[in-house]
Amino acid sequence: MCGVFGVFNSKTPAEDTFYGLYSLQHRGQEAAGIVVAEYNKAKKKTLFKQHKGPGLVSEVFRDEQIFENLSGYAAIGHNRYSTTGASKSNNNIQPFSLTYRSGSLAIAHNGNLTNSRALRKELTEQGVIFQASSDTEIIPHLAARSKEKEPLHQIYDALRQVEGAFSIVILANNQMIAARDPYGVRPLALGKKIDPATGEMAYVVASETCAFDIIKAEYIRDIAPGEILLIDHLSVENEKPVSLYLPPVERKARCIFEYVYFARPDSFIFRNSVDKVRRNLGKNLARESTVERKDKEKELAVVSVPDSSNTAALGFVRESNKLGKPARFEHGLIRNHYVGRTFIQPGIQSREIKVRSKYNIVRGVMQGRPIILVDDSIVRGTTAKMLIKLVREANPAEIHLHISSPPITNPCFYGMDFPTKRQLLTHMLADAEHELGNVEKIREYIGVDSLKYLSMQGLLNSVPTFEGEECSYCTACFSGDYPIPITDATTDKEEND
Amino acid sequence: MCGVFGVFNSKTPAEDTFYGLYSLQHRGQEAAGIVVAEYNKAKKKTLFKQHKGPGLVSEVFRDEQIFENLSGYAAIGHNRYSTTGASKSNNNIQPFSLTYRSGSLAIAHNGNLTNSRALRKELTEQGVIFQASSDTEIIPHLAARSKEKEPLHQIYDALRQVEGAFSIVILANNQMIAARDPYGVRPLALGKKIDPATGEMAYVVASETCAFDIIKAEYIRDIAPGEILLIDHLSVENEKPVSLYLPPVERKARCIFEYVYFARPDSFIFRNSVDKVRRNLGKNLARESTVERKDKEKELAVVSVPDSSNTAALGFVRESNKLGKPARFEHGLIRNHYVGRTFIQPGIQSREIKVRSKYNIVRGVMQGRPIILVDDSIVRGTTAKMLIKLVREANPAEIHLHISSPPITNPCFYGMDFPTKRQLLTHMLADAEHELGNVEKIREYIGVDSLKYLSMQGLLNSVPTFEGEECSYCTACFSGDYPIPITDATTDKEEND
Amino acid sequence: MCGVFGVFNSKTPAEDTFYGLYSLQHRGQEAAGIVVAEYNKAKKKTLFKQHKGPGLVSEVFRDEQIFENLSGYAAIGHNRYSTTGASKSNNNIQPFSLTYRSGSLAIAHNGNLTNSRALRKELTEQGVIFQASSDTEIIPHLAARSKEKEPLHQIYDALRQVEGAFSIVILANNQMIAARDPYGVRPLALGKKIDPATGEMAYVVASETCAFDIIKAEYIRDIAPGEILLIDHLSVENEKPVSLYLPPVERKARCIFEYVYFARPDSFIFRNSVDKVRRNLGKNLARESTVERKDKEKELAVVSVPDSSNTAALGFVRESNKLGKPARFEHGLIRNHYVGRTFIQPGIQSREIKVRSKYNIVRGVMQGRPIILVDDSIVRGTTAKMLIKLVREANPAEIHLHISSPPITNPCFYGMDFPTKRQLLTHMLADAEHELGNVEKIREYIGVDSLKYLSMQGLLNSVPTFEGEECSYCTACFSGDYPIPITDATTDKEEND
Amino acid sequence: MCGVFGVFNSKTPAEDTFYGLYSLQHRGQEAAGIVVAEYNKAKKKTLFKQHKGPGLVSEVFRDEQIFENLSGYAAIGHNRYSTTGASKSNNNIQPFSLTYRSGSLAIAHNGNLTNSRALRKELTEQGVIFQASSDTEIIPHLAARSKEKEPLHQIYDALRQVEGAFSIVILANNQMIAARDPYGVRPLALGKKIDPATGEMAYVVASETCAFDIIKAEYIRDIAPGEILLIDHLSVENEKPVSLYLPPVERKARCIFEYVYFARPDSFIFRNSVDKVRRNLGKNLARESTVERKDKEKELAVVSVPDSSNTAALGFVRESNKLGKPARFEHGLIRNHYVGRTFIQPGIQSREIKVRSKYNIVRGVMQGRPIILVDDSIVRGTTAKMLIKLVREANPAEIHLHISSPPITNPCFYGMDFPTKRQLLTHMLADAEHELGNVEKIREYIGVDSLKYLSMQGLLNSVPTFEGEECSYCTACFSGDYPIPITDATTDKEEND
Repeated sequence: MCGVFGVFNSKTPAEDTFYGLYSLQHRGQEAAGIVVAEYNKAKKKTLFKQHKGPGLVSEVFRDEQIFENLSGYAAIGHNRYSTTGASKSNNNIQPFSLTYRSGSLAIAHNGNLTNSRALRKELTEQGVIFQASSDTEIIPHLAARSKEKEPLHQIYDALRQVEGAFSIVILANNQMIAARDPYGVRPLALGKKIDPATGEMAYVVASETCAFDIIKAEYIRDIAPGEILLIDHLSVENEKPVSLYLPPVERKARCIFEYVYFARPDSFIFRNSVDKVRRNLGKNLARESTVERKDKEKELAVVSVPDSSNTAALGFVRESNKLGKPARFEHGLIRNHYVGRTFIQPGIQSREIKVRSKYNIVRGVMQGRPIILVDDSIVRGTTAKMLIKLVREANPAEIHLHISSPPITNPCFYGMDFPTKRQLLTHMLADAEHELGNVEKIREYIGVDSLKYLSMQGLLNSVPTFEGEECSYCTACFSGDYPIPITDATTDKEEND
Repeated sequence: MCGVFGVFNSKTPAEDTFYGLYSLQHRGQEAAGIVVAEYNKAKKKTLFKQHKGPGLVSEVFRDEQIFENLSGYAAIGHNRYSTTGASKSNNNIQPFSLTYRSGSLAIAHNGNLTNSRALRKELTEQGVIFQASSDTEIIPHLAARSKEKEPLHQIYDALRQVEGAFSIVILANNQMIAARDPYGVRPLALGKKIDPATGEMAYVVASETCAFDIIKAEYIRDIAPGEILLIDHLSVENEKPVSLYLPPVERKARCIFEYVYFARPDSFIFRNSVDKVRRNLGKNLARESTVERKDKEKELAVVSVPDSSNTAALGFVRESNKLGKPARFEHGLIRNHYVGRTFIQPGIQSREIKVRSKYNIVRGVMQGRPIILVDDSIVRGTTAKMLIKLVREANPAEIHLHISSPPITNPCFYGMDFPTKRQLLTHMLADAEHELGNVEKIREYIGVDSLKYLSMQGLLNSVPTFEGEECSYCTACFSGDYPIPITDATTDKEEND
Repeated sequence: MCGVFGVFNSKTPAEDTFYGLYSLQHRGQEAAGIVVAEYNKAKKKTLFKQHKGPGLVSEVFRDEQIFENLSGYAAIGHNRYSTTGASKSNNNIQPFSLTYRSGSLAIAHNGNLTNSRALRKELTEQGVIFQASSDTEIIPHLAARSKEKEPLHQIYDALRQVEGAFSIVILANNQMIAARDPYGVRPLALGKKIDPATGEMAYVVASETCAFDIIKAEYIRDIAPGEILLIDHLSVENEKPVSLYLPPVERKARCIFEYVYFARPDSFIFRNSVDKVRRNLGKNLARESTVERKDKEKELAVVSVPDSSNTAALGFVRESNKLGKPARFEHGLIRNHYVGRTFIQPGIQSREIKVRSKYNIVRGVMQGRPIILVDDSIVRGTTAKMLIKLVREANPAEIHLHISSPPITNPCFYGMDFPTKRQLLTHMLADAEHELGNVEKIREYIGVDSLKYLSMQGLLNSVPTFEGEECSYCTACFSGDYPIPITDATTDKEEND
Repeated sequence: MCGVFGVFNSKTPAEDTFYGLYSLQHRGQEAAGIVVAEYNKAKKKTLFKQHKGPGLVSEVFRDEQIFENLSGYAAIGHNRYSTTGASKSNNNIQPFSLTYRSGSLAIAHNGNLTNSRALRKELTEQGVIFQASSDTEIIPHLAARSKEKEPLHQIYDALRQVEGAFSIVILANNQMIAARDPYGVRPLALGKKIDPATGEMAYVVASETCAFDIIKAEYIRDIAPGEILLIDHLSVENEKPVSLYLPPVERKARCIFEYVYFARPDSFIFRNSVDKVRRNLGKNLARESTVERKDKEKELAVVSVPDSSNTAALGFVRESNKLGKPARFEHGLIRNHYVGRTFIQPGIQSREIKVRSKYNIVRGVMQGRPIILVDDSIVRGTTAKMLIKLVREANPAEIHLHISSPPITNPCFYGMDFPTKRQLLTHMLADAEHELGNVEKIREYIGVDSLKYLSMQGLLNSVPTFEGEECSYCTACFSGDYPIPITDATTDKEEND
């Protein structure tokens, strides 16, 4: 996954982008970069400057001097997440900046193109050279080969040819362009920020609205699925950016997993509060929950895996009590504040010490009690297993694990960093009878007294609906129902992940 | 404040100490160090090796190679917190290691000596030279000048002469010594760890028990106030460390602020669960609370300042509901996981961006509602003021700020990093009538609809009692009642802080 | 300027390339990179791995772990020199590696293309995007668009289209290609290295033969002007690399400045010992020299500016004595060994402290004596001026500055990092009468008693001749006679320098 | 070995000291530090600030910000050389700064105390604690225990008790003290610098006069053997520093090896030009030289090992020709400019690649010729052996190795970093007949056609004489005649080296 950010007509575009990326840090911790557009008086045109590097935003932009070198009026930025060695190459750190026949271009992309292999092959045969392994590089190549003269139309041409999930921010000379695929898989929001000194307005674009909050920008609306939005000095003056629209597709396919786990709870995603959706997930989980307790005397404690499941757990407790199933919310697990990306584990290089370093248990609130542990999802299952082992040290009477989403049964080809099918816990525990592993086997593997997943219907009941849309979400990871054809991606999954 | 850790008879003493310090990171973020004792076969004696540096534990010990160079059988470690420039000198990073007539010595200290100025003067007049500005250096000087032959008795001699707060771990040749001042101001716990492979036992000593949990050590008991505990290979064999005791003092003076804010909630401090005490603080706050709401229709939301006030808020809500004052717990503020020590703020170098970077608001749960915001304490008031400004952006109907401790009116001379009296908010808002600023003025300054502090009696009702003790706690920061004479410290406060 | 290196069929290609680049460090100190070709058994094809970064070779490749990650059988490397800010972008660090229709390609280039602007424009119009500002990137673009199928022929096609100076090493899948422009401007040598353990032969290619010496490789011959040499496993087996030849040009244009200053004295350049040529320069300078000494009693001391002018000074002294003009060689200036690239100058950020930090004077050998100071060339004149000021502190009776080459009057468009015409000292001191500044004015500016440049004829008499060639050298910087048309370079000089 | 520097009454004491240490870099590459004295107006007294670290001066003081934090009016600095692991501890990096009864003290020391073990024992028994393993720490301890009140007299008291070699610079509150042992083993010079803007004078003290040149200071005189010089604001005003003198000793013992190899040729050491002495060494070597050439036809080339032997080789050639033994000076070896301290050698971690990386051969001037290779000394012999192997690659007809000093037969206990006796080549090649290895065996080991050492008499004839002194030099490393008793040092040599 990745986070993208853009700002236009600011006096401190690099600083704004830094804070934007900083608040989008959860979307990608491996690398970060900022490209700034500055008007060069001598050359009478806009020139780009950039700073990129591996690591957290605060590590890559540690020196204040970097910002002195990044003055300008507009900027875009990117947070990159990636696990495979190959992609650690600096060549792959975004935004990509380049020059082509119409001038300078820089691009930051969140998502995954599903016809990248075919397009890459086609372009390659025409003599195109690729510097990075990222599929993002395809887009500027297509734009550069368009017969259109305006960057906006070139980008339109390019985006018509790509398939898949993309939320994109582009700097093209003295313009900023933001675009989102017609399915609307990844989020992208538009905001504005008023300079307190001058009263001038800057447009901002970000993966999540939490990036607006930190710089005191205001959320205007989402970039619509299929929209290509042009922001330039004229749009700022008129307060009216221009939009083109990609040909519509049959359905929408917003990533439901953004609500389940990925987005920050204080963000608005797809026009709705993430926190509120997670509360609904908890409520619906409570409605479906039927915990068989061995010891019915002791009060049931509900413990969330912080911080992603806090709200769901709270929603669960409230609904549970409303339904006459008493349960109390407890902070039984505490997240360590000092876990950083560069953390090393001398001696015991295991996942166990990782879990122990990340979470601390509060014994008193769990000891001797039956507990419901609320988590958002299980992917590989290894962390869950270790976490349960840790919780067991507090001697709870029973552990009932509740997952606020259905079992993950399929990989994501639209940008979420899931492992291959083979590495999903559901598959590892598959058997003759149960293609995807039965829940009982998973329960046994993880080592809990009972295991409850939210049903697909419960999930769908929890997320907002969109008027006039029959189908609004992509639920492929839970259902295997892939809304966008994945012509080549399937086989690539392992190498390009 | 600082964190100390020690381990004896381990195969991986540096690794154990690393994880111990890592879990004590909240006690000091400025510098960290480890000294290891290794038996040198060629020289037929124990030699010390060390690694120290400024920064977080995970930064100072980033390279795995450091651990390869730190093999041995015992180790002590130290986390240092300090804000003033002077103390950033590497000379001040602990543990201090040195050689003296009886061999090698290394010392790690949490606390503050109150007669350090007098002792330093006396020693200096005798020709002693000091390399660091820390008062800790006094202790080995006194030990080296003792007429005793055994390090244990030399240390006893030294500690009889110092006054103030100290929890100390020492390596002296092939022995480890742990000691705590007779007032018991700072915590210090003893534990043991069984090597899963060999079944051998290692003793561990730490400021808080959370340092035991991470390395799967077991909490045995606290080092008693005034106890000097000797651990060597014989004590390991017999499972019986030897203890000396400093002359008893009239009262005990455990730092009550460790319970209020400083210690980690999952630790046991002074034999009791920090989490449980904080819950009591919340309960008692609920009993004392009488919120005058303007709009009595809307449900009251209780929001905690994460993570330190989570438990108090939970206790508050539960008790409040029990008392028939309905209120619901909400996660209205979320703590950013990526705030690191090395964070820089380009452009706006204000406390505002610091607060915005650290906390995110969840609008939905606060918007339009009257809220009670629960925080543990107010020191300077600047952060509280900015936080309230941030919370206001979520448009709560009313903000009632509840503090789970009384107003801080006096500086700490026993190790807590409070500012000078002048910088405390209570003093800044003093006037003719109210020496310590009246609550109304503070409320106004911070900008909330109402402000409620827990009463001193409420605080004392929340903390555990100790049999046979008339007075168990130091409450000086709230009451001005200093249990240990502060002969020189008062005037020093500003420079040595 | 830059240094290039390549090795094929070695067991330690990255290490060989490291040492090669290390000995070519004088050709470029700003950045360094290595691309390694490794056969991947699983994928049954050669894959590339790379490491690049800003700084000296020893800085970029500081960690031994880097080499562990760079195993393979072939490698190419590049040292980059550049002074302008723009080019410090990491995008510009070579070798460039990329994928295109025929697989993987990596390229390292020394030189400068003179029709890059036109080609770039043409390519851009065809939809090509450029990631770096370097002209090198044009070559793989042309190759990728060639209709040929074999990389060798694609490269041939590409190089037919470019004009200018280029010495190039390329990795193309499992082949290495080395090429030199038809004018032969920049040097490029072929060597071989026998593995002492296995007896197997590796081919090596380098800008200068000093890169062979350090890894105990043997110099075979130069890559001929216009030659495109293919090295693959078959050529290693047969000990016979295959060559194609670019269409011949009317004349050759070896850079005479490589002999004057740039190349290392222990290298063979254009088949001849650099040291020997420099000695000739000194000899011819002695023949032309007619120093008017004020004090004819005292012995004349000849002092060289170390280390580049040492040999010329030695040749000068010997010839001078032979001609009956007695003079003695003295080490009057010593070069500081610890001057590094990262050197900072607190306080006085001037060129003066730079010169004082780089050179030390030995007073005794100059005091009271008339001296001839031998230097290789004067570019801007600022360093020379400061150096003379420094030498004056030793109180020589007279300073006669002898330059072992003619005045530099024109910028280089073929890769040498000269400043623009305006910044050359000859131009700065121009007047109505003397377009290029007269020698008298330069003498006065620099502050010496007399100033003598070697004549153009003296220069040409000093360098080796090549059979059958009427014109063998480019002397443009001294004569303004540019052998290769500079269609666009002139105007670009300032921005792309 | 080490370099020391001090400056008093400068506006840029840290910058001056930086450049001073930079020019003394050859005296110690392992660590560097600066302590600055600044008058604190608020506290009405001088306070010290420091910056120290491992590495070259330019590495330790890389950031300009360091200098911003080091403002003041006086400073001392230290370069440390050390090879053993133990001494890499940061605790050992000088200057040491500390507080004691009379205020603040900082000390930088070049040399080695020979009664440190006894003094340390005595102090330790009195209860003194030591933080570093360096013998330097003894001096402030002795000073702090003196009954005198003035730092100058305390230092006098302390230095009366220590034996061995010491050249010391001290900051004591608002005074600077420079001292040299009565034997005068290590050099120490006094200079002055006039501020060009204000005309104010600053005193400077340095191990070698080259440190004066770089900051344009003027050499006044040497600190005399046994002198303790006090510089304060009064001495600056009067231009008259005050001196005390330690009790005189029977003889002087200036380190003759400073002239042979250690000091920089452009320095004045012991009042005389190092360059001139080295020239004398070459001359006397020529007088003693009787090369038996196989091929008497070919001209004899004299090649020096740069840069330390350049002058000796020049002196040799001149004298040789004068004596009718024709020989020509040649630059046959070139020193690589980019060899840095942090250089790593991937793959072949041998001394061979170290030598190959440091020196390049110029084939043409040696090929087929008989050569005399002039080097200053042979210690372990391993580098010499590898160097000869390298020179052989140029195919000289014969190699006659001339060493401009006698064989090193004994370790140094006064500060030179020689290995233990066992590791000296002379000892490794000892046999029954020749206790110190005969020259023939050494010749064979190193692999040259002949080997000639300068005689002891030749050495003594080359160095300056001092009026009224019967014995002026320490020649212990060549003669075993140790001028200062070495009560404990001998046995310590191996561990403390």
